[in-house]
Amino acid sequence: MTEKRASIGARRNPETEAAVLDAATEILAEKGISGVTMEAVAKRARAGKATLYRWWPTRGALLMAVYRRRKQEICHPDTGTLEGDVKAVLESLFDHWSRPEGRVFRHIIAASQSDDDLREALEDYRLERLAHLGEIFERAAQRGTLSDDVPAQEMARAVMGMAWLHLLVGRLDADAAGIARTLVRGWVRPS
Amino acid sequence: MTEKRASIGARRNPETEAAVLDAATEILAEKGISGVTMEAVAKRARAGKATLYRWWPTRGALLMAVYRRRKQEICHPDTGTLEGDVKAVLESLFDHWSRPEGRVFRHIIAASQSDDDLREALEDYRLERLAHLGEIFERAAQRGTLSDDVPAQEMARAVMGMAWLHLLVGRLDADAAGIARTLVRGWVRPS
Repeated sequence: MTEKRASIGARRNPETEAAVLDAATEILAEKGISGVTMEAVAKRARAGKATLYRWWPTRGALLMAVYRRRKQEICHPDTGTLEGDVKAVLESLFDHWSRPEGRVFRHIIAASQSDDDLREALEDYRLERLAHLGEIFERAAQRGTLSDDVPAQEMARAVMGMAWLHLLVGRLDADAAGIARTLVRGWVRPS
Repeated sequence: MTEKRASIGARRNPETEAAVLDAATEILAEKGISGVTMEAVAKRARAGKATLYRWWPTRGALLMAVYRRRKQEICHPDTGTLEGDVKAVLESLFDHWSRPEGRVFRHIIAASQSDDDLREALEDYRLERLAHLGEIFERAAQRGTLSDDVPAQEMARAVMGMAWLHLLVGRLDADAAGIARTLVRGWVRPS
């Protein structure tokens, strides 16, 4: 909780920003995603609604900001092989999503099915994550081991597809090594 | 709409069953998934609530029944190769989900994030679909071309992961052939 704030310019004030994101996080925990309205968050943070809208033009953008802030940067350590890198990414995601962050993200995906603002904010975030995932495929390409049968962007989407599926069905205890093997190795015996 | 029904035994009466599923489908279209309560459906179908509960023990089970009924059986034609079979499955799913059925299923996945009954009903359905998908891997095994590096069940999950991701982010126009290639071919150049 923070004290009442005076009017704020267009530049973000880090304290107010933190107060708003704290407020949204609290409301999310208390009332679920539908409780997080711009009005309720502004009131709890003692900030002006105009300020909220200036910094997060939609409720979806604000919800994504809450998730992003709680998200430790998922790192992509160089394990020396693409299969190892995919395993490390999945382990890091499953671990992260096993905390309250996973609940937030599941509910963002769920609510985005009927909330266009949130859908748009999620899509921006998703494309950013896909680009970030690209790192591990660039490394494999530099090692000279990446197949050029398949575009790296499709590979990144496959990793994301497996991750989301396991999040949404509550199987974050799945075997990341097995999933990595499934994705990276071919399914057809070399003839 | 159907006429008022007399009390019904434990055996399902196909007409009543159809009336209940019609009613649930109508309410779903009018009010969204949260409008589909056992009470509202019973009332609209002029059936007893006890009957509904006897046949579909939870609201989740009823919603899954609505989706199942609308779902043309996704067929798995034998295209002669695993990659072709995966492509055909994805095309058939994307096509199916581009109709109102896709909306129903997206909303079932979304609502299952905060509804335990629905989550359980969806999980049953999901495991059934995974088993059904197993067909295409059995065929590949019979052809003698399936790699034994990866369990077929994991392969089925990867196909499902890609399908769900594309449904949930509204990318059902994606290139099924490209996705099939990504999944079936290895990502690492044979050394």
